[in-house]
Amino acid sequence: MADLYPPQSDDYPTTERSRVRREHDRGSHGRADVYAVLDATPLCHVGYVLNGAPYVTPTLHWRKGDHVYWHGSAASRFLRSAEDMPVCLTCSILDGYVLARSAFNHSVNYRSAMVFGTARLLEDAEEKAGALRRFVENLFPGRWDSLRPMTGQEVKATSVLRMEIEEATAKVRNGPPGDTGEADFPVWAGVLPVRSHLAPAEAAPGLPNGIELPEPLAALIQSGRIR
Amino acid sequence: MADLYPPQSDDYPTTERSRVRREHDRGSHGRADVYAVLDATPLCHVGYVLNGAPYVTPTLHWRKGDHVYWHGSAASRFLRSAEDMPVCLTCSILDGYVLARSAFNHSVNYRSAMVFGTARLLEDAEEKAGALRRFVENLFPGRWDSLRPMTGQEVKATSVLRMEIEEATAKVRNGPPGDTGEADFPVWAGVLPVRSHLAPAEAAPGLPNGIELPEPLAALIQSGRIR
Repeated sequence: MADLYPPQSDDYPTTERSRVRREHDRGSHGRADVYAVLDATPLCHVGYVLNGAPYVTPTLHWRKGDHVYWHGSAASRFLRSAEDMPVCLTCSILDGYVLARSAFNHSVNYRSAMVFGTARLLEDAEEKAGALRRFVENLFPGRWDSLRPMTGQEVKATSVLRMEIEEATAKVRNGPPGDTGEADFPVWAGVLPVRSHLAPAEAAPGLPNGIELPEPLAALIQSGRIR
Repeated sequence: MADLYPPQSDDYPTTERSRVRREHDRGSHGRADVYAVLDATPLCHVGYVLNGAPYVTPTLHWRKGDHVYWHGSAASRFLRSAEDMPVCLTCSILDGYVLARSAFNHSVNYRSAMVFGTARLLEDAEEKAGALRRFVENLFPGRWDSLRPMTGQEVKATSVLRMEIEEATAKVRNGPPGDTGEADFPVWAGVLPVRSHLAPAEAAPGLPNGIELPEPLAALIQSGRIR
């Protein structure tokens, strides 16, 4: 029976690539810490190398277990360039400005995750449709089944990349300025928090009368979260 | 006299690297369009290549004319790796979710800019201090002169990278779902706008009595902008 539950580390391996170098106290290789950042924002930045030069493309991602996913047009250079190549996918959230008594001690409160792996195109149409469904459902619970169903042509025109997380680092800073030794210097110090939220929904022009905002979307807007 | 005012293009050059491929209507190489995105958010993602592999590091940037700047510890691998190397610096802002009648037509409203160039370390201490002053003043007007002055040791411990923008692309989507041909399908469609703002300031623990939030910071919080 032992093989059914192989021991699994809760940390990603630490290598030269991902080892936290600066400000160790802020860094973690823990899966839970990495997942928390990946799941807190829909927006990521995907870095890849093309002809030796770096490219960073913003896109939306989603996660299932130890895999991250993103998608785009089947004709996209971005997706074709990232396929079967080493990728660094980074998520970051600016939580606030940290204002200290000196310029040097100014900082930001933030959450970030860098994940490393090799991106693979999903080839199977059903697997692709299933991944896209999870993408929509993760953001907007209950929406997929209410939509005009996806056509085979639309699945074909969409590429989905999946990347197993081989290594990852999460970094978080949260708190007041650390320069309490200079608290006597007569300048205001503290934190200006940055917050993101959903504003009231804007119905599409020409939306037929009687179609109300679905309850899960209303609840999401109400929640103060952006996903 | 003609040489005094050499004609200057308002567009960045269009090359294989930066040519807008997908959704041309959303893309621009115009300087004003690129500046507008770079100046709208303090957060950027810097992509660089180390031993052939991509890295994407979030950081704060600032801009002066056709140069972007970012900074960090003089001991940072990130800064040393990006020096004298090709860099792609990307800024992006998620402005909203665009919900259509089909999964395929879902989209996001966003603003993004990708800028390409080669990063150089500022060597001169005065130039470095001047750049850091602009960084602080851009974010928090009037703050620099109110701070405990920077020491020579602090300038030394800080690296500043400057990158001339050689090529750049801005992309923007803004508007309702584009699937008006399917408006009869009975599902809610429209936009869920995402907004970021500053929350009320949190004074540092132990801030001496009588030190009030400076008026420019109060005005910034009031403005609804995050910079």
